[in-house]
This record gives sequence, structure tokens and C-alpha cells, in this order.
Amino acid sequence: MSVDVVLLTLRAGRLCVLVIQRNEAPFEDYWALPGGFVGADEDLDSSARRQLTEETGVTTAGHLEQLYTYGDPGRDPRTRVVSVAYLALLPNLPQPGPGQRGQQARWWPVEDLGPPDGPTLAFDHPRIVADGVERARSKLEYTPMAAAFCEEPFTLADLRRVYEAAWGVGLDPPNFRRKVLSTPDFVVPVGAVSSPRGGGRPAQLYRRGTATALHPPLLRRSV
Amino acid sequence: MSVDVVLLTLRAGRLCVLVIQRNEAPFEDYWALPGGFVGADEDLDSSARRQLTEETGVTTAGHLEQLYTYGDPGRDPRTRVVSVAYLALLPNLPQPGPGQRGQQARWWPVEDLGPPDGPTLAFDHPRIVADGVERARSKLEYTPMAAAFCEEPFTLADLRRVYEAAWGVGLDPPNFRRKVLSTPDFVVPVGAVSSPRGGGRPAQLYRRGTATALHPPLLRRSV
Repeated sequence: MSVDVVLLTLRAGRLCVLVIQRNEAPFEDYWALPGGFVGADEDLDSSARRQLTEETGVTTAGHLEQLYTYGDPGRDPRTRVVSVAYLALLPNLPQPGPGQRGQQARWWPVEDLGPPDGPTLAFDHPRIVADGVERARSKLEYTPMAAAFCEEPFTLADLRRVYEAAWGVGLDPPNFRRKVLSTPDFVVPVGAVSSPRGGGRPAQLYRRGTATALHPPLLRRSV
Repeated sequence: MSVDVVLLTLRAGRLCVLVIQRNEAPFEDYWALPGGFVGADEDLDSSARRQLTEETGVTTAGHLEQLYTYGDPGRDPRTRVVSVAYLALLPNLPQPGPGQRGQQARWWPVEDLGPPDGPTLAFDHPRIVADGVERARSKLEYTPMAAAFCEEPFTLADLRRVYEAAWGVGLDPPNFRRKVLSTPDFVVPVGAVSSPRGGGRPAQLYRRGTATALHPPLLRRSV
């Protein structure tokens, strides 16, 4: 029984996933998701957080949810290993340092994984990443979780760039603004404006609100 | 590693879950969810379907989704058992017969589980049932899955009764009808009407459509 963590963030406007380079067989030198075997007396959530921190130095006190459990008999060449995958989202973070077992860790743009632009991940991790990304894209429609990608305080343009990066589309700013502000307490004004960047006008700053669902939803098909 | 199945159906207007009576330790004679240990070369989905059929005679070719994986170290008194729970929904079914290992199987109204009206399920199955019911209630808001509870062809009143039973509320028929028909292809008229029952007018009959999401959603808070 193992856990694997799909940790997503936004870097330079691109959706990125945290990967480590394995330094032991099988798949030695391959890039893979952080994770590993669950301890005998460890619950699954705690194991996911522990292994993420040990292998990448990243600590996530925030949003961490079960993604799916992968149990195909042949998914690990050694023996039967069922993996419980977790999904987490964090605001922009620096490149991580090496893990406690010496693995390299880095952010990789999701769209660059696989040939010709990037590595093919070990095991069935390409599928786990794809499932995690689709879960995130879908939850952006109905939940306020996009704000979890933003460092507070943030502008509505910052929030819009999360949607644009995750969905790979351009969104109409006034339409986006109208829909976001239609859900009470999705975002809350902090009563200050941003410093103008690049000659733009200062923009209202927000923090995360307490809404748990978006009414109306922000649907990929209708933006 | 085990699998457990939360199989929900509607019987006499009530949301019911399929349970079996255990005939071995631990929790001998307790009612529990159908399920058991995953075979060495068996994938998780296949194992869930197999154990459901072996223990209850029920075959679900239809909707079966992973619900959550339960891994608290103390959840089974024998040894560490991590359970992958599945959720399935079926139209009204007869009471099942005994399973291949002689267990009794029956439908139990979800609201009657636990004292004083019904049994306390074995292991952490009360929590698994609660999670499955909440998942179903929530998915009724955004997906067409309520129609999976209905035998085809069905009327809009049949469909409404699914929502009413699952949510434990009464819904306004004209408002419900308007919202359901707003989503293209949620339900499709079959071009016939029902036989009048109890002096009512005949009602248009429908089958399930191909929509995958409801626009607009049917929200518990706004009905």
C-alpha cells in the first residue's frame, strides 16, 4: 500500500506538478510523483503529508484531498502495490530542494510532460497526473478552489490567470469579474488596491472568502 | 486490502442501502456492506462487482464509482485492512436472496440505520454509508444521475421522487419540471404517456438522455 501526491501550483502562468527523480529501482532515474509506502500504524492522509515533506521539503497544511485509488495488479513491477493518490494545490512556491533521501525535486509544467518536451513519469504516474489535472480543472468550475492557487491578497486578474492556465483558454475579463462577484463570499475585498504594474490602473485586492460552492458555476464550455 | 460497496436504490419512496448479515467473526451477526478481500490478481473494480454478486446476487453493469479509501489503522480489529469503497445506484430492485456464503442480504432504509430503528453496521461502515449518501445527494445537484434510479420509461414525477427521497424534502412540481427540462438531453420524451393512476392525468414518459452535467444545476439550497 502506497500513497502518491499530485501537487499542483501555478508558475509563470503555467500549471505545474511537483515531481522527484527516483534514486532506486524500479524506474531508477525516472521522474515520479512524491510518495511511498504507508507505515504500519500511519493513516493515509498523514502518510501523504509526511512523504511529500520528506521527499521535497514542501509542507502542505492546506487543501489535500483523495484523488483516486489505483490498483491494477501490474502497475508496479515488483509486487502488488495499491496506491492511494492525493491531490493538493498550493500558491506559487519556489523550486524545492533535494529530499531527505537525496532525490532531486522540481516543478514541471504539466503540458510539457512526456515526449518531446519532457520526461515520461514512472509507473502509472502519467495517468495519475492526468486524473489530478482533470479533477482540478473540473473543480474550478463549481468550487472556489482557484483561490487556493493565489497568494493573498490577490487581484481578480490573478484569479483569472489561474483559470486561464488550468483550462488553457483566454477568458473575457469583464465577464469573468461579473461571474466571480456573483457568488457571495467567493472572494472578499481587503479594502486596498494593488500597486500599478506596467502602467496599468491599480486593481482592487481580495482575499479568499468562505463560500464552498460557486453559484453560478464558472463553466469551461460557456466562457 | 478490501473493497466495500455502497449500493443505493429507492424503495417505496425511501433511499435504501444494500446490507448483508455477517456469518463470521469479527462482527459476527452484524449487518455490514457487501465486500471483502481483493484477490491477488484482481483489479479493484472487478473485485467490487464480484463480491457484490457473490454476497447478494445483485449484478451491477451500471454506474459504479470509487467513493473513498478508508485506511485508519484501527478500523478492523484483526489486522490493518485498507478498504476501497465503491458507490453504485440502481433502479428499484426486489429483495435479494442469500449470498453464496449463506449471508442474508436486504435493503435497509438509510434513515433507519442505527438505534433506535435499525442496526448499527459493522466496522466503520456507518461512516462509509454516510459518505456514500452525501456523495449521491451532492451529485444529484450537478449530474443526471437521478435518472439512474428510475426504471425506463419514467415520468417527471418519478424523477422528482428520487430527489425528494434522497434529499428528504418536498419539491415544487412546476419548478422542478422547468429546471429539469432546461438541461438539453437530461431526459428524452419517448412519445408516449403513462396510464392514469388513481384518477390523475396521464403524464409524459421519458428515458435517460446523454447529458453529463446539469445546466442549470438543481441545488438543494434553492429548491
